[in-house]
Amino acid sequence: MTTLRLPGLIDVHVHLREPGGEHKEDLTSGTAAALAGGVTTVLDMPNNYPPVTGSSTLESKRRAAAGKALCDVGFYVGATATNAAEAAGLAGQAAGLKIYLDETYGPLRIQDPSAPAGHGLAALLGHFSTWPADRPIAVHAEGLSMAIAIGLARTFGRKLHVCHVSLASEIALIRAAKRSGARVSCEVTPHHLFLTEDDERRLGALGQMKPALASAADMAALWDNLDVVDCIATDHAPHTLAEKQGDSPPPGVPGLETMLPLLLTAVAQGRLTQARLVELAYQAPRRIFGLAAQADTWLDIDPDARYSLGSRELHTRCGWTPFEGMSVQGRLRRVVLRGETVFEDGRIAARPGSGRPIVPAAPGRNAQNAGSAGP
Amino acid sequence: MTTLRLPGLIDVHVHLREPGGEHKEDLTSGTAAALAGGVTTVLDMPNNYPPVTGSSTLESKRRAAAGKALCDVGFYVGATATNAAEAAGLAGQAAGLKIYLDETYGPLRIQDPSAPAGHGLAALLGHFSTWPADRPIAVHAEGLSMAIAIGLARTFGRKLHVCHVSLASEIALIRAAKRSGARVSCEVTPHHLFLTEDDERRLGALGQMKPALASAADMAALWDNLDVVDCIATDHAPHTLAEKQGDSPPPGVPGLETMLPLLLTAVAQGRLTQARLVELAYQAPRRIFGLAAQADTWLDIDPDARYSLGSRELHTRCGWTPFEGMSVQGRLRRVVLRGETVFEDGRIAARPGSGRPIVPAAPGRNAQNAGSAGP
Repeated sequence: MTTLRLPGLIDVHVHLREPGGEHKEDLTSGTAAALAGGVTTVLDMPNNYPPVTGSSTLESKRRAAAGKALCDVGFYVGATATNAAEAAGLAGQAAGLKIYLDETYGPLRIQDPSAPAGHGLAALLGHFSTWPADRPIAVHAEGLSMAIAIGLARTFGRKLHVCHVSLASEIALIRAAKRSGARVSCEVTPHHLFLTEDDERRLGALGQMKPALASAADMAALWDNLDVVDCIATDHAPHTLAEKQGDSPPPGVPGLETMLPLLLTAVAQGRLTQARLVELAYQAPRRIFGLAAQADTWLDIDPDARYSLGSRELHTRCGWTPFEGMSVQGRLRRVVLRGETVFEDGRIAARPGSGRPIVPAAPGRNAQNAGSAGP
Repeated sequence: MTTLRLPGLIDVHVHLREPGGEHKEDLTSGTAAALAGGVTTVLDMPNNYPPVTGSSTLESKRRAAAGKALCDVGFYVGATATNAAEAAGLAGQAAGLKIYLDETYGPLRIQDPSAPAGHGLAALLGHFSTWPADRPIAVHAEGLSMAIAIGLARTFGRKLHVCHVSLASEIALIRAAKRSGARVSCEVTPHHLFLTEDDERRLGALGQMKPALASAADMAALWDNLDVVDCIATDHAPHTLAEKQGDSPPPGVPGLETMLPLLLTAVAQGRLTQARLVELAYQAPRRIFGLAAQADTWLDIDPDARYSLGSRELHTRCGWTPFEGMSVQGRLRRVVLRGETVFEDGRIAARPGSGRPIVPAAPGRNAQNAGSAGP
C-alpha cells in the first residue's frame, strides 16, 4: 500500500458553535471533526451567542479552547457598528477581523437596512481605517457587497480576505482586483466546488447555506479560475438534523470531514495537483493569516482507497453531510500532531486540551499573492 | 456699480425631462432656466421615458436639442443590465456613462434586488470593463453603494465621477479614495450645501429628493471638506407642484436658477472664494468631462445686489423652488453666449437652437485631480 504524507491542513473558516450552540457542535466535537478530516488548525468565526466582539468574549473563548480543543484553534473577532477601536486593539490576539456585509446565520450583520443612510458606510470606514494594515479583514460579502469590501480595502490599504467566493461574476471580480494590485486573497468552499443548485433541489434544507449553491456554470467558473483562488476553506457550519428539517431551517452545512477526500478525489481525477492541494489548504492559509508551523505534524493517507462518504463515520455533533453517498478516492489513515497520534483509522486518539488556542504571527508580505504560486 | 465677469457656468447634472416628461420641463424651458442661472452648458441625465440607453434614443435626443436648446447640452447614456457594449460604442458621443446603483426617479436602476444573486455584479463588471477608460462613469451611489463604485473603478482602472455626495461618511470616503490614488471626482449639490433635514420638515415634499437632505453635521462636513469636492452641480430635477403635492410625490427639486446666487452669497460671506467658485462650476467640469471652451461667452454679475429667491422669477416649467424666500447677495445681469446676449435683466433673449448638442473631447489626464487645484 502506498502512503501519501501531507502536512496537517488548515481550515481558515469554521463555526465551532461554542458558546451558545453546543447542541450542534462544541470546541471538542468540532475539533474532533477537524482531525478526522486531516485538519490540525482551524480558524473559528465570531458569530456565536453572544458574538465575539470584544476582549471578554474573545478571552472566554480562548480559555474554553485551552481546555477542550483537540486541534489548534484561532479566533476571529467580529465587527459591529461601534467596536472598531476595541476590535483593532485585539488584532494581535485574533486570527483576523470578520465583517458580515450580508444577511446570514448569526447576529453580526453590519449593514442594517433599517439604519439611516450612510450608517453602514460610517461603520465600515471605522473598521477599515482602524484595523491594522498587516492583519487580514475577512468578509462575508456576496455579489455587489464584494465590490464594497474591495473598494474599502483598496482605499485604506488594508489586507482583505474574501470568504466563500461562489459565483462566476465574483471570481471574475477577484481576478481583476488582483490584476489591478489589490491586496486581496480569497477562499472557496468544497460545497461550491462539488455541488450545484441541482443538488440543493435534491437535498432540500440540507443543501442550503449562505452563499447558496449556484449554477453549474458558476461551479465551472470556480474550477476554471482556480489559479486566483488562495484557499479551500470549509465554512463548516453545523446545525442539527431537527433544525434543518424544521420550519425555518438555518443556513449552513458541515464540511470539515469531507474536504480532504473530495480534494484527494480531484487529485486522482487530474483536476488538481497534489502540490496545489497543499498550497490551497496549508501554505496559503499559513501565509495569509501568519500561522507558525506545527512541529512534527502530518497526515498519512491511503491515496488509492475508494469508498462513499456517509454520516455513519462522522465526528461532528450534527451527524450528517450534504455529500452523503458521494464516491471518493483517498482515505485519511492517521494524523500526527506534535509527535502524537491524534487520529487513526477512524478513531480520535486526542484528549481535550491537545489542541492549543493560537496567536498568529504577523503574516508575510506576499500573502496577498498566495494564489499565484500554484501550478 | 461694480460688475463681476465670470465664464458661463457648466452644470454637469441636470434632468431636462425630454422625452416623456415635457409637462414638467423640456429642452427649451430647461435651457432657459440654465441661462437664467448663468449656466451655458448642461449635461443631461438619461433617465427619461424612454431612457437613453442606445444609439436611437441618444440620437433622437440630440436631434431634438439641435432645434430646441437655448444653451449647449451634452447627454449621458444610461447603463442597463445588458447594454455594456452598445453604451461603450456611444462613448464618443456622450457626456459620460450614468449608472444608477440606488433607487431614485426613473427606470434605470441597475441593481435589481429581485434579480438572482450576482446579477447586479455581473452587469456592473460588464460596464466597468467595457466603457473606455478615459471617459467618465458617473454614478448615483449613496452610502455603501459609493464604495461599490470606487471598488470597481479602481479594479478596472476606470474614471469615476460620483454624483451628489451628501453625507459626512461619503465625503470621508471620497477624501480617502483620492488620497489612495483613485481616479475619482465628485460633485455636491447646492441643496445639500444650503438645506438640511430641518428644511425638509418645513418644506414637505418640496424638500424631498434623492439623496435626501441630511443632518446639519453632514452639511457642515461638505463645507469642511470642500477641498476634495470637484464640482457643484444642481441635480436640477423638476416636477410639477401638483405632482409634488400629490399622494406619492416623486423625488427631485429644480436648481438651475438658484445655484449662482447661492454661491455668490457664500463668496460674499467669505465661505468660498470667487476663484474656487469658478473652479467648481466651470474649470473642473471642463477638465473632467473634456468640454471645449465656448468662445465669447461670459456672465455679467452685480455682486452687491441683495434680494430674496422666489418662484416669481423662474423660467423652469415647474415654477417653484425649495429656496423660496432665501436672502441672497449677487444678481446675474447678462449672459453672452458666443457673442450674443442670450439673457438680460430677467429676460431670455435666446432663440430655440442657439444652444448646441455637444460632443465632448477626450478629457485631460489630470481631470481626476481637479478638486485639488482649488484654493
